[in-house]
Amino acid sequence: MTSLEVQVRELFASVEQTLRRAMEALHARAFFAHYPESLKAYPEEAAAAGKERFEAQLSQPFALPQASDAWLAAEEASPYTAQPLGISYPAFQDPQRYVDHALAAAPAWRKASPAARAALLMDALERLRGDFFELAHATMHTTGQTFVMAFQASGPHASDRALETLALGLHELERFPAQQIEWVKPMGKFDIRMEKHFRAVPRGIGLCIGVSTFPVWNTLPGVFADLITGNPVIVKPHPRAIYPLALAVRALQASFAAYGFDPATAQLAPDTAAAPITTFLAQHPEVKLIDFTGGNVYGDFIEGLPGKITFTEKSGVNSVILDSVSDLGAAMSNLAFSVSMYSGQMCTCPQNFFIPRGGILAGGEHKSYEEVVQAFTEAVKGIATNPKMAAGVLGAIQSEATLDRALQARHLPGRLLLDSLEVSNPDFPQARMATPIVMEIQPDQQEVFSRELFGPVVLIVPVEDTKQGLALAQALAREKGAISCSAYSTDPEVRASIEEAMAESATSVSFNFTGSFWVNQNAGFSDFHVSGGNPSGNASLTDPAFINRRFTWVGSRTFIP
Amino acid sequence: MTSLEVQVRELFASVEQTLRRAMEALHARAFFAHYPESLKAYPEEAAAAGKERFEAQLSQPFALPQASDAWLAAEEASPYTAQPLGISYPAFQDPQRYVDHALAAAPAWRKASPAARAALLMDALERLRGDFFELAHATMHTTGQTFVMAFQASGPHASDRALETLALGLHELERFPAQQIEWVKPMGKFDIRMEKHFRAVPRGIGLCIGVSTFPVWNTLPGVFADLITGNPVIVKPHPRAIYPLALAVRALQASFAAYGFDPATAQLAPDTAAAPITTFLAQHPEVKLIDFTGGNVYGDFIEGLPGKITFTEKSGVNSVILDSVSDLGAAMSNLAFSVSMYSGQMCTCPQNFFIPRGGILAGGEHKSYEEVVQAFTEAVKGIATNPKMAAGVLGAIQSEATLDRALQARHLPGRLLLDSLEVSNPDFPQARMATPIVMEIQPDQQEVFSRELFGPVVLIVPVEDTKQGLALAQALAREKGAISCSAYSTDPEVRASIEEAMAESATSVSFNFTGSFWVNQNAGFSDFHVSGGNPSGNASLTDPAFINRRFTWVGSRTFIP
Repeated sequence: MTSLEVQVRELFASVEQTLRRAMEALHARAFFAHYPESLKAYPEEAAAAGKERFEAQLSQPFALPQASDAWLAAEEASPYTAQPLGISYPAFQDPQRYVDHALAAAPAWRKASPAARAALLMDALERLRGDFFELAHATMHTTGQTFVMAFQASGPHASDRALETLALGLHELERFPAQQIEWVKPMGKFDIRMEKHFRAVPRGIGLCIGVSTFPVWNTLPGVFADLITGNPVIVKPHPRAIYPLALAVRALQASFAAYGFDPATAQLAPDTAAAPITTFLAQHPEVKLIDFTGGNVYGDFIEGLPGKITFTEKSGVNSVILDSVSDLGAAMSNLAFSVSMYSGQMCTCPQNFFIPRGGILAGGEHKSYEEVVQAFTEAVKGIATNPKMAAGVLGAIQSEATLDRALQARHLPGRLLLDSLEVSNPDFPQARMATPIVMEIQPDQQEVFSRELFGPVVLIVPVEDTKQGLALAQALAREKGAISCSAYSTDPEVRASIEEAMAESATSVSFNFTGSFWVNQNAGFSDFHVSGGNPSGNASLTDPAFINRRFTWVGSRTFIP
Repeated sequence: MTSLEVQVRELFASVEQTLRRAMEALHARAFFAHYPESLKAYPEEAAAAGKERFEAQLSQPFALPQASDAWLAAEEASPYTAQPLGISYPAFQDPQRYVDHALAAAPAWRKASPAARAALLMDALERLRGDFFELAHATMHTTGQTFVMAFQASGPHASDRALETLALGLHELERFPAQQIEWVKPMGKFDIRMEKHFRAVPRGIGLCIGVSTFPVWNTLPGVFADLITGNPVIVKPHPRAIYPLALAVRALQASFAAYGFDPATAQLAPDTAAAPITTFLAQHPEVKLIDFTGGNVYGDFIEGLPGKITFTEKSGVNSVILDSVSDLGAAMSNLAFSVSMYSGQMCTCPQNFFIPRGGILAGGEHKSYEEVVQAFTEAVKGIATNPKMAAGVLGAIQSEATLDRALQARHLPGRLLLDSLEVSNPDFPQARMATPIVMEIQPDQQEVFSRELFGPVVLIVPVEDTKQGLALAQALAREKGAISCSAYSTDPEVRASIEEAMAESATSVSFNFTGSFWVNQNAGFSDFHVSGGNPSGNASLTDPAFINRRFTWVGSRTFIP
């Protein structure tokens, strides 16, 4: 064995138990959390050190060991301070160079065993863990997420989802015998014998296209899935959210360098809105795999590229179906939080609430439609006007366009139930903010509620009954896509019918959520995020197809005379 | 339980051991043969009875329990007798009706458990087994295959591949917990608890498009993969090879009917070249899955259809790389058989032979290029001129177009090494036949040898050395696709380099084949047929992606207060 092989074997031995446990957890879909998410679980000095590193990085070049011939002055600006971050990133003037470097890095990485790749990628996750506090600030000041959400989403939760791809990847790659096996075919008077073995051949270069709202959480799974299956990867962040992904790539490149692999096995390829490089990379014949999170128009373009294998998360129209509840206040409070959290900028945030015109049963008592609606709008108002809570729930709005769209929602053809309220963040007076606008839209105005109104906008649709609401939610999910569905019913038969109907539209349902867990949240090792079975996207985190489309099984056989 | 559930459970109990063994065999990729392929393994009277049933079917309507409103007079004609078969098949005048019936059949089939589906589909395979002799005649007289090949390919081998999809399907569908599991997230002072469960939701209607040369072997895996994963299927046979697939559909419909499912769960949708319905069905929004075997032009069209999940096998350019052999005669005899078998109409048949100009080592002795070429052409001639062997190896040529193309090959820009020889089949004087034409083409004439010349055509390309031959084979596989590669070398290092280089083009290599097993043959439970990693097709029989792209995992979760 070479010294590199010895090193990597030692590394694998040190992480093997975690990987095996992760594989088990994945198949059981039971609780599993590799990375503690509580801020208290980290050394006391980590929080302050992370903040210092963030502040020191502002207005400075971001160093990476990857090859480059230019510094790209990024367009990042904080939704909290309205100030540019002023960071520049290493880049190539000609994006073809990313492809050239990825091709040069490919052979060594392809030849590394699945176990070696898993070990190195675990090592990168451990390095990234040391950056979780800096990553939280970087995420907060590019996406507008609150600090706590930014910490959880880009840190432990994203790492859990990355680890999930390593566990499933290792399982898939070890699934068929790599070692020579003897195959025997009895022919009557004699046998035919062959030695056969099978190898998982990577597809080529992977391109992972980041989004501005969840740059790490949405991108890391594709990056790690490409890498565990042996493909070099080019990470193309959103021009307004480069910093968080630059930290992830830095951790990866440190691990590659430490074990003698080319840092270009995972490259950062930043660009600007003025000079985008995504289409060039996506159409490049050497790019075989594309992971994309973002809007429908570009997502449809990516899905339609000939000869590419794509994994997309686009937009959906998420529904809430109200049938009956045990406790109206608890349900409405949970839903109000769901639509307020990060100002409706989560792909899993509910948009359309289908509420029976005749009201619903709540704890056995009849509540009128108006009472239900009022309980909801009061709960939204309660969060928005609570000075201790508002800023810490709403965060900031990532882009001007999202804010404009939200404010325009009050002109939709319907009844304004709750306008956007005055709100501010005492720590960041310049923060771009808006509280949710709630409109009532009649069920015959499908053109209004059958598109995603990304941001803090809620549409209440009064329906004849639960059945009509379900039919609308199902049709929307089927035709426009849905990433989540929240439903409340105290009747197990009604729940079963909702689950069955939404499953036909490949949409997961969260029933009767109250307290401090929300339909918006999906957990690694437990939930399939985006089913891939309706127009909201064509892939799921992390089902087997998310892994095994990234390589090809090739068997060879040698005749034994 | 209803009586249907009781019946299906009993059926499952009776086949479960076979299915579990099949699952094990699949993962071990060890030898496994569920269906004995020797003609002697069937009851003595089966052969005669099958022939009688075939003869009685000629010029008659083919009865199926599926709904229909017309009889389609098929264009089938025997490549052996040049006579039309004269069979008509039940059909709909408006192909939309197939979609309507598939949609009507879908809910019951979707709701059937994976185990129930597996049991019913095993039952259908058992029924089809009773038709193997009729199926062999039906295949022979539509495709031109010899009787023995027709029996093996459409009978036991196709059934093995179908069984393989059931085994892998059951494994994939049972992979995550369907039953409710309790998920717990510790929150410090309290826990959040949920019940979660996961269901595999079928995609929609599957369309399986048959080919004229291997109508059953190439189509049955997609049909069974669609069905085990809960999708109703429309089988659209090639207009010239309907009868074999009609037998397969009849077996399926008998099983559906026996257990109370709609026969339209699997429908036959025959058409004619004059009034094709394939494009209508393929573009139909309710058709979500398409399996296709056939030419590149239509295959590329299928792959490019927006919003469809496709599984294609198109064409490839298969290479032979000669480096060194133990026994020249044994190697050349094996290769001559490979190119003669079914007159080169197998997708795995070698086309381009890369032979070093300076000759090769054979059993330690140097053999000149001319000696090697002569040994090969003599071996081809030996088969073609052996009256006891020729007809039984060559079979007949399926279409006039293939015969014309083959005969035109002698006008390619190169040296004619062996022309097509006079040959006849004593049992079928009208059989459409041609023995392989062997041409020498120089390595700089890539435009000549870089396309598939389907049929009995072999191109010998003299190369500088093994390295040049390998480079050409690798580039061809990468750019034009390849489904097989045959290589001969006595040097393990050379074999390793060939295997590595061809794996990069996602092409399986068969080394040093001699005796009675040929590169053309792929075995269920052992080989991945078509890797899906080069332009010859985008899917593989049967890797996990062949199964798990046909359904979506959808999880639901219910809050436990």
